[in-house]
Amino acid sequence: MKAVIIGSSGHYGYALPSITARGITVPGIAVTEGEDIDRLKSALAGRGIETAEYPADEIFDAVAPDVAVINTIFSRSCDYACAALERGISVFLEKPAATEFAGLDRLISAWKRAKDEYSGIRLGGMFGIRYEAPFVTAERLVREGRIGRIILVNGQKSYKMGTRPPFYSDRALYGGLIPWVSIHAIDWISHLTGSRVADVSALHSRAANRGNGTMESAAVMRFSLEDGAIATVTTDMLRPENSPTHGDDRLRLMGDGGWLEVTGGKAFLNGNEVPLDPPRDIFADLLDGTDEEAEANRRLSARNLFESTRAALCARESADRDGEPVNVIYDSKG
Amino acid sequence: MKAVIIGSSGHYGYALPSITARGITVPGIAVTEGEDIDRLKSALAGRGIETAEYPADEIFDAVAPDVAVINTIFSRSCDYACAALERGISVFLEKPAATEFAGLDRLISAWKRAKDEYSGIRLGGMFGIRYEAPFVTAERLVREGRIGRIILVNGQKSYKMGTRPPFYSDRALYGGLIPWVSIHAIDWISHLTGSRVADVSALHSRAANRGNGTMESAAVMRFSLEDGAIATVTTDMLRPENSPTHGDDRLRLMGDGGWLEVTGGKAFLNGNEVPLDPPRDIFADLLDGTDEEAEANRRLSARNLFESTRAALCARESADRDGEPVNVIYDSKG
Repeated sequence: MKAVIIGSSGHYGYALPSITARGITVPGIAVTEGEDIDRLKSALAGRGIETAEYPADEIFDAVAPDVAVINTIFSRSCDYACAALERGISVFLEKPAATEFAGLDRLISAWKRAKDEYSGIRLGGMFGIRYEAPFVTAERLVREGRIGRIILVNGQKSYKMGTRPPFYSDRALYGGLIPWVSIHAIDWISHLTGSRVADVSALHSRAANRGNGTMESAAVMRFSLEDGAIATVTTDMLRPENSPTHGDDRLRLMGDGGWLEVTGGKAFLNGNEVPLDPPRDIFADLLDGTDEEAEANRRLSARNLFESTRAALCARESADRDGEPVNVIYDSKG
Repeated sequence: MKAVIIGSSGHYGYALPSITARGITVPGIAVTEGEDIDRLKSALAGRGIETAEYPADEIFDAVAPDVAVINTIFSRSCDYACAALERGISVFLEKPAATEFAGLDRLISAWKRAKDEYSGIRLGGMFGIRYEAPFVTAERLVREGRIGRIILVNGQKSYKMGTRPPFYSDRALYGGLIPWVSIHAIDWISHLTGSRVADVSALHSRAANRGNGTMESAAVMRFSLEDGAIATVTTDMLRPENSPTHGDDRLRLMGDGGWLEVTGGKAFLNGNEVPLDPPRDIFADLLDGTDEEAEANRRLSARNLFESTRAALCARESADRDGEPVNVIYDSKG
């Protein structure tokens, strides 16, 4: 199996363990304007993976890979993903799948055509936090019915601002805090409840963004879900720089039969810490099985990527309109 | 000084330490239809306080108290408060101050008239959680500037459902989960940021309310504040019955200079637990000083009670309209 990596702006690192373990070759890498290729090169060299540089627009035809790991500047990702799918190449795509509705719709169309034409093709998003031990554990406990029907969900993403690459200063390139960061929590909500978000009211703020242009520093959302559950998501880049970890991810699920919480890298059932299941490998999850199996088993599927991206773009739209609610309209497949 | 207590449905207990310590007499108590007077009687007897029962409609004229502690069924509180204020009696009132906008407006009018007529009269709400040690500590740290300007606030109220008195089964009597419970978190937000909430989108749910009629079991809100900060509030009655405490109050404040959190009865500054200041006495705070001093020092003031009640009623209105945003319009004094 042959893989290429396009871009060095996201979580290509998620793919490396399986590339090494499965002997997948990486005959080509590429970056786009303004991205740092050296970081990517040394990550591969550090694992003894030989590769070569290509222009991003030529790499698919030059190398003919089986799978493309795409994590370039967010606004550019979806067109590379479309180009890959058109050639029958599976895609592991940084979230959000697109930074505008038009791009998302192009991607959904490209996916539908590719699925008809290329048997076994896969598309999945880099929702890596789902695969971390406490979230894997939470997912299992929910599936086992340990908290009953979920009535209320609260999700939190909190990061350090740090020194961000220049593209984060430009909404047109990075897409906004909600599609970039909050999307994880939106994905947790749908993934764990098994219900899509139906309607959102959101707000975001650029206060205290430390000179990062139009980058948002904080966002809040309230959601209704299709099954009647309700949810909040809070997101910020205000975590103190000297904190022990970059992120402070939290998830709180209140069911009619119990209470489940992920915080500080631990999982708690009804307030009691539970032993953690092992983390899972997200890239392996994408590669193994078919998209239909993934969809049926609520693993990493194209549909899930489309739905979480659409919900995040709708939340951003609500925030751009000062909190006016937005109904999330999913098409039949997306 | 003479006090009366009307109702046994709320936090009259907040008044008892100061009644004892200051030798305040309680010549009369009263309850309204459907309330249990025995609980109130034994609480007073347990502190050696002698009292007598009166009909609620006659107690003010019969006893002529200086202050009325009013915590009857929520929908009835505000008219007793109006009746007290009209007679120049100060009021310590269970929140919400009213369960409908019309009642709140009546109360505000009664207060304006009373302030003009009776020097030194006071009105304050039973926002007792503010006076608990971790919240007192958080307030001091905010006032000291330890987290800079507040950009984002997240508030949580989570209670056990328990066995609730019958009036909680009827929205017309208890007013709804948001005015009853979420109002605390709304009050924290305004009290700690020093900024009122400007706009709210809220949802609530009756799922899993264990047969409590129309009682809501969960609610979510997102707020914009007048100073530009943003906030979420989550509220539920889904805390497992065998939890060690009744409530799971949480508050998280993200500023441009730091991060402050109250959770599990503790306070944390930038992730580090801080020693707690002593709790304060809410009834003493109401009795001491003038309303103008209270307002100037952000203590327990009539204005604060009106504003938090209005914001909560607006949030409930938004939830009743499936999350349509509601602008909170404060009148010049309320």
